[in-house]
Amino acid sequence: MLAELKGLNEECGLFGIWRHENAAQITYYGLQSLQHRGQEGTGIVVTDGKQLKSKKGEGLVTEVFSKKDIEELQGDSAIGHVRYSTAGGGGYENVQPFLFNSQSGGLALAHNGNLVNATSLKYQLEMQGSIFQTSSDTEVLAHLIKRSGFSKLSNRVKNALTVIKGAYAFLIMTETEMIIALDPHGLRPLSLGLLGDSYVVASETCAFDIVGAEFVRDILPGELLVINDNGIQSEIFSLNPNPAICTMEYVYFSRPDSDIHGINVHTARKNLGKQLAIEAPIEADVVTGVPDSSISAAIGYAEESGIPYELGLIKNRYVGRTFIQPSQSLREQGVKMKLSPVRGVVEGKRVIMVDDSIVRGTTSKRIVTMLKDAGATEVHVVISSPPIKNPCFYGIDTSSYEELIAADRSVEEIRQIIGADSLTFLSVEGLLKAIGRQEPGETRGQCLACFTGKYPTEIYAESMKLTKKC
Amino acid sequence: MLAELKGLNEECGLFGIWRHENAAQITYYGLQSLQHRGQEGTGIVVTDGKQLKSKKGEGLVTEVFSKKDIEELQGDSAIGHVRYSTAGGGGYENVQPFLFNSQSGGLALAHNGNLVNATSLKYQLEMQGSIFQTSSDTEVLAHLIKRSGFSKLSNRVKNALTVIKGAYAFLIMTETEMIIALDPHGLRPLSLGLLGDSYVVASETCAFDIVGAEFVRDILPGELLVINDNGIQSEIFSLNPNPAICTMEYVYFSRPDSDIHGINVHTARKNLGKQLAIEAPIEADVVTGVPDSSISAAIGYAEESGIPYELGLIKNRYVGRTFIQPSQSLREQGVKMKLSPVRGVVEGKRVIMVDDSIVRGTTSKRIVTMLKDAGATEVHVVISSPPIKNPCFYGIDTSSYEELIAADRSVEEIRQIIGADSLTFLSVEGLLKAIGRQEPGETRGQCLACFTGKYPTEIYAESMKLTKKC
Amino acid sequence: MLAELKGLNEECGLFGIWRHENAAQITYYGLQSLQHRGQEGTGIVVTDGKQLKSKKGEGLVTEVFSKKDIEELQGDSAIGHVRYSTAGGGGYENVQPFLFNSQSGGLALAHNGNLVNATSLKYQLEMQGSIFQTSSDTEVLAHLIKRSGFSKLSNRVKNALTVIKGAYAFLIMTETEMIIALDPHGLRPLSLGLLGDSYVVASETCAFDIVGAEFVRDILPGELLVINDNGIQSEIFSLNPNPAICTMEYVYFSRPDSDIHGINVHTARKNLGKQLAIEAPIEADVVTGVPDSSISAAIGYAEESGIPYELGLIKNRYVGRTFIQPSQSLREQGVKMKLSPVRGVVEGKRVIMVDDSIVRGTTSKRIVTMLKDAGATEVHVVISSPPIKNPCFYGIDTSSYEELIAADRSVEEIRQIIGADSLTFLSVEGLLKAIGRQEPGETRGQCLACFTGKYPTEIYAESMKLTKKC
Amino acid sequence: MLAELKGLNEECGLFGIWRHENAAQITYYGLQSLQHRGQEGTGIVVTDGKQLKSKKGEGLVTEVFSKKDIEELQGDSAIGHVRYSTAGGGGYENVQPFLFNSQSGGLALAHNGNLVNATSLKYQLEMQGSIFQTSSDTEVLAHLIKRSGFSKLSNRVKNALTVIKGAYAFLIMTETEMIIALDPHGLRPLSLGLLGDSYVVASETCAFDIVGAEFVRDILPGELLVINDNGIQSEIFSLNPNPAICTMEYVYFSRPDSDIHGINVHTARKNLGKQLAIEAPIEADVVTGVPDSSISAAIGYAEESGIPYELGLIKNRYVGRTFIQPSQSLREQGVKMKLSPVRGVVEGKRVIMVDDSIVRGTTSKRIVTMLKDAGATEVHVVISSPPIKNPCFYGIDTSSYEELIAADRSVEEIRQIIGADSLTFLSVEGLLKAIGRQEPGETRGQCLACFTGKYPTEIYAESMKLTKKC
Repeated sequence: MLAELKGLNEECGLFGIWRHENAAQITYYGLQSLQHRGQEGTGIVVTDGKQLKSKKGEGLVTEVFSKKDIEELQGDSAIGHVRYSTAGGGGYENVQPFLFNSQSGGLALAHNGNLVNATSLKYQLEMQGSIFQTSSDTEVLAHLIKRSGFSKLSNRVKNALTVIKGAYAFLIMTETEMIIALDPHGLRPLSLGLLGDSYVVASETCAFDIVGAEFVRDILPGELLVINDNGIQSEIFSLNPNPAICTMEYVYFSRPDSDIHGINVHTARKNLGKQLAIEAPIEADVVTGVPDSSISAAIGYAEESGIPYELGLIKNRYVGRTFIQPSQSLREQGVKMKLSPVRGVVEGKRVIMVDDSIVRGTTSKRIVTMLKDAGATEVHVVISSPPIKNPCFYGIDTSSYEELIAADRSVEEIRQIIGADSLTFLSVEGLLKAIGRQEPGETRGQCLACFTGKYPTEIYAESMKLTKKC
Repeated sequence: MLAELKGLNEECGLFGIWRHENAAQITYYGLQSLQHRGQEGTGIVVTDGKQLKSKKGEGLVTEVFSKKDIEELQGDSAIGHVRYSTAGGGGYENVQPFLFNSQSGGLALAHNGNLVNATSLKYQLEMQGSIFQTSSDTEVLAHLIKRSGFSKLSNRVKNALTVIKGAYAFLIMTETEMIIALDPHGLRPLSLGLLGDSYVVASETCAFDIVGAEFVRDILPGELLVINDNGIQSEIFSLNPNPAICTMEYVYFSRPDSDIHGINVHTARKNLGKQLAIEAPIEADVVTGVPDSSISAAIGYAEESGIPYELGLIKNRYVGRTFIQPSQSLREQGVKMKLSPVRGVVEGKRVIMVDDSIVRGTTSKRIVTMLKDAGATEVHVVISSPPIKNPCFYGIDTSSYEELIAADRSVEEIRQIIGADSLTFLSVEGLLKAIGRQEPGETRGQCLACFTGKYPTEIYAESMKLTKKC
Repeated sequence: MLAELKGLNEECGLFGIWRHENAAQITYYGLQSLQHRGQEGTGIVVTDGKQLKSKKGEGLVTEVFSKKDIEELQGDSAIGHVRYSTAGGGGYENVQPFLFNSQSGGLALAHNGNLVNATSLKYQLEMQGSIFQTSSDTEVLAHLIKRSGFSKLSNRVKNALTVIKGAYAFLIMTETEMIIALDPHGLRPLSLGLLGDSYVVASETCAFDIVGAEFVRDILPGELLVINDNGIQSEIFSLNPNPAICTMEYVYFSRPDSDIHGINVHTARKNLGKQLAIEAPIEADVVTGVPDSSISAAIGYAEESGIPYELGLIKNRYVGRTFIQPSQSLREQGVKMKLSPVRGVVEGKRVIMVDDSIVRGTTSKRIVTMLKDAGATEVHVVISSPPIKNPCFYGIDTSSYEELIAADRSVEEIRQIIGADSLTFLSVEGLLKAIGRQEPGETRGQCLACFTGKYPTEIYAESMKLTKKC
Repeated sequence: MLAELKGLNEECGLFGIWRHENAAQITYYGLQSLQHRGQEGTGIVVTDGKQLKSKKGEGLVTEVFSKKDIEELQGDSAIGHVRYSTAGGGGYENVQPFLFNSQSGGLALAHNGNLVNATSLKYQLEMQGSIFQTSSDTEVLAHLIKRSGFSKLSNRVKNALTVIKGAYAFLIMTETEMIIALDPHGLRPLSLGLLGDSYVVASETCAFDIVGAEFVRDILPGELLVINDNGIQSEIFSLNPNPAICTMEYVYFSRPDSDIHGINVHTARKNLGKQLAIEAPIEADVVTGVPDSSISAAIGYAEESGIPYELGLIKNRYVGRTFIQPSQSLREQGVKMKLSPVRGVVEGKRVIMVDDSIVRGTTSKRIVTMLKDAGATEVHVVISSPPIKNPCFYGIDTSSYEELIAADRSVEEIRQIIGADSLTFLSVEGLLKAIGRQEPGETRGQCLACFTGKYPTEIYAESMKLTKKC
């Protein structure tokens, strides 16, 4: 499953609110609902119209912010961020939003996505005397904005975006305005809502539900939104014939209660499961899913196939960052970590195990073994997405071919490696049909690059070594 | 649902292991798998045959124990405890296992359950000059053991148990032996396993699966087990015509992957859901369960009724002890806490919402409102257990009639309070049938006191004020 | 110097206050001024007349108590303790005051001193079924009080004191009274003061100055004071022909601004230095003292001898518990720890180095070497007390003869070991004369046992192995 | 006394070492000995020749660095910093050394002093697109270095220094060299030493004694030192006819065991006291000093005057950052904070109280009152420096005239405000004579600006509002 890349296959999350008396608290709850998109660090920047104030730290939202912290973040506008990865740039410094103060005012910046030309841009800027505070690609935007010759901030931002390539959803805040920008392909989800009279923006719509806001609309690919005391202005800064939302947002990243471009994620996943049952009818006694991301698909498979759905695998809810990993020797003695099989459910049964994806294959192999050790007579692995054959350069850390088991192996070869009795991947066509988007074109407005190798943007050599995402 | 009593309706958990080179680590993983039984505090006592060493603290297993702590707990035998409640006796002092050192050796003690005559016994002991370290009922046993005239520890324990009444599973450890005792009604689950050549004991069998141990058998009501270097000796210290395992262990407490007296908990819950569908056929569009405890029952209901099962409610996984509760005003503005509805799933639908139980009714009301706000046209609440009309004195904190909504109200009155379109409880007969125990007698070896008012033990006036459980 | 026994040669400190609206705060400042008597742990117990509430922890007063802690210690009476030693019983459990709750009320207990028959008493009590919570000798008193047949608390305490032997100053507090007891020899200092209308009690008078209280009188040997809402009652529970205050309180333990039995400690130490200059006139260029305890004596020596006093040694003020000790190899390369010599002052000079005492000799040797390395041509060590030839059983951890360099060595032998050009100890007569107490008898009301071997109380074999003091 | 400006009147401290196998540990001990120069934050950067690694934090050296931290700072060269002030720029970000990483390598920077044209420079740089990470004046240097056109680092540094004005001692480190720079007036002390074959550099020579290094020489005003694997190269980058070491380094800042330009600080202070006794002979019974900084001067005064030196004031050693300040009401009731008078020493006596300086006068007033309350019949205040009439712009936070009691008041007016029976300041001539420097010129190579108003550098309007120093 995608989660097997420790902390690497999850996305960052953004939340912002403009002019609301409880800006910091609302942002706290908004970020909390986006916590699944990143658990490594989080921050909030508020403004009271006069200055910007920041609190950030490594860890979960509930670990980083105390009640006192939130109370001290006084102001009526805020942006916040949850960050997923320590790879290639952990530490306090890289936790977002970034806050840049200068004698002419402050600038806060939060980013979800990954730039494909950040290294080149950074090199050019350093040659001109810029000093970078972080190892994050995000900081490049701040320097480009600062160096732009325009006087209006929105013009400086647009100017900067003309040289940036890759996937990005940006939230930018100063003392007097909030700017929202989405890349020309709309690779990452970003939506606009209203809480009373206050605009809110979030990576996923589940954040609106949690804070009681109403969904207004999705941000468009290539759109720049400026919110200030004059209201909200929209502008398309890039004409875009090729929208390409990340397909894995439907398959794995997003929360089941979010809607992406009008499609509920749980429903999409259930349909993926149903489609799998149509494409791969298997004779078996029980259907089970790998918690939590594959439960919906498993239920869909069960419903379509008529084979009962059961809890064959249990996830340990209390395994967090401080969990002491069992030693190799203990693991060989049978000590489990995050997942354990339910013997009473799988013993003596032919089991269909639904998972969202296979990246390295290690976890799939471990789960198959676990189920067989618990008495399953057969284990049929069905995957609710096609084989991931190509690295992603837009925020999912699969940036080299080496770590992808499907890059150069057939399905049968993978089946042997993971030890399953059968292995089925969903077809690309089935995937598109199940998700059900109606956009024109072959890809229906989705990025399918990890399956097909057709990337929506240019890719540079520098990206191939990328270790930092988000 | 039972979880609406904050932290009060969960049980403690016990784990022990005798003579294993990784005693502390194994206990750490065992306790982790029992974490759902108590999140307020945890401790481990080890012995190397010469002395007892302890580490305990308030919080989760992963919060209390660092890698260094576990390494420093050197020894080949251990007992551990997870504790659920701060009510009537929070604080470091009350975290178990208790460790009592004396010049003649140490004694460690861990307890799951609740004694009904502890207050009287404590009063008598204090009158004789005993000093209690804690406000826990558990400590009474230690004093009784210390004051017993017998020289052999097992005889001292048996002697002490003759005056103790109520629900208890005890783990006792000295430098040279481990003693396990279960009350004459067997109100709490306790099982014996083998990890290689080492005996393990745990409140639930899921702990055996996690550490790779094999289940041997359940501890019998009224049984005393002595494990030392001579092996294992069993003795029935109390003849017991009336075994009475807590029914809520099947309905709510235990992990779905545990087996209690040979019955898998997930399967039992799914059967409860199926039985509900038979007893209460409802016309509706979707079935949903309150996560996590009611998912199995909801799936059972869906399977039996043919109505599709959907994720209509999402639980926020990252809400822990440090979560900042939304203020009343924010809550009125719509900020959610632990649960949020999935609009995309329930909007415009007739929803069957399956929950495990209703205690005060507050949470049920909140969920019904939430679902309706999210667009459900009808909400039918079905409960996979009968109405809780009587307090529990054996470890579930429902010790006064006032807090039980069903104590003196009809089903229709409750329905109106929670605002559901219909409300159905499972019948007692249906409950017994669905769980499917084969023991003789009307109650099939289960305690049904909270439903029927027939308590298996004496109850004293002092218990009615009980605030401390476990 | 005495400080060379890490953490072992310091004393505990007591502070109490009855009926003052800021009881916890006042106690905080009082304890702070007694911090030199113990840095390992501290606690405060308050009462509001209805219950006792406690907060304690390992570390300094400023580390253990936050502002919030002090605010939460609501009540108008309090006792507090600073504890010096982890030897033979470290850990949270052994931090005082001890608080024992029972159904008939609470009892808090703080102790400065050391009992010589605690082990025997504890053994007897355990044989009768008592369970001890700590490894502290102090707890014995609580059990004796609890088991006493009398009904009035003061009678129970007196009853308990009849079997206790050794050095003790006790503060006892319940919801309704405070009891103060000093052993029949008055081995430890303890004074009574008044802050407005509120009685305060403290180990040293410096605590009165810090909190703005007035000194009333010293507690008498063998006195029991009961303070409650009826006022204060005094009673001599033991007739005492032989008062024996610890001489090292004057020489080393107490703060220079305290008065013990009417004699200022700084003045006493200065007189010790003057007396040394009379007994041991030495030709030299500068006088220096080992900070902080020997500064007063060094100034006295300088004043009497006419040789200028200089800062020849500097103490690093910021070396605390978390200081990383230099490795042996770094120490050999010259890395200093707590003390460093002032080259500009000692280079090319004949130096008189005044210290308070020599226990093991290790530190003296190190300082002599340090001064010579810094260029001193001669180092003359003068000690403001006689050789310590006998262990102390009353609270100073010199309980075996082995660790006392002077136990079986001549002054000349010690001089050779520490490498000084000359070594002088003060005579016992000089010591008594310099301190200047006017009590009748050979010892002038002082305990001189460590110099002379004449102990004021019985000593039992069990004490010889004592590792825990205070 | 100068210390009355909370945390503002102390200086930062620098330590560096090149090519020593224990670089981080040595730096830890060096910084520890410089802790008196700054307690607000500290950091160490090491290099192993390939990269720079940093650890820093707010608090004391012993609080910020654990043993593990030091072990992880692997490398054979290091620079470290202790920082004194949170004013105008507290927080983790402003703790030094600053570490700037770029694709062409790292640059670490530590600074002691204060620039007088930093605000202007920063404004110019920001106009050119530079983004500052901190609110510290120090960062300006990094940007100037980065933007310099030269290719050799030492040339870039020299280039940058040509536009910087004020007081500075800089330590700069890259993977391959260490650069040391002192401002053209040499306002801050900085010395070079040798530890074995390794060069060390420190703000004060006491750091050499602590780590076992030998003093080589003081860094010259306007000197640039480059240390790399080719050895050490010195260059005077600014011809300087007017050296001006801060006089307060002798009077207050430096540790008594340090030598500044060949003069021992303790000896200088003692001479200041002697000179005071000559300039202001007073009839009195005892001389006492305000600990710790005025003890040497008080001893000098006593020695010269023949009046005995006594410990009339005691400093509470354990008052740290976490100390809970007494409320106004408690302070009025007499609760003391850092200092308490020794009643046994001052009662009924005419007291000469020696202090190093008077800034606001508040503390002096408090101490006089304290001594009189403790029974002193007369209190004569003698100050071992002239009146501070002018703000300092070089690192001591007295940057406005308002806060200086002597700015526009006569000595008699100040005496009345502080309530002393007499008040004497040292004359400027007496000050110069007592310190005893032999440099040519009226000021003997010292900065006397705070006494005389003659500043050695230009001063700009922007400096008058400066709140951040060091």
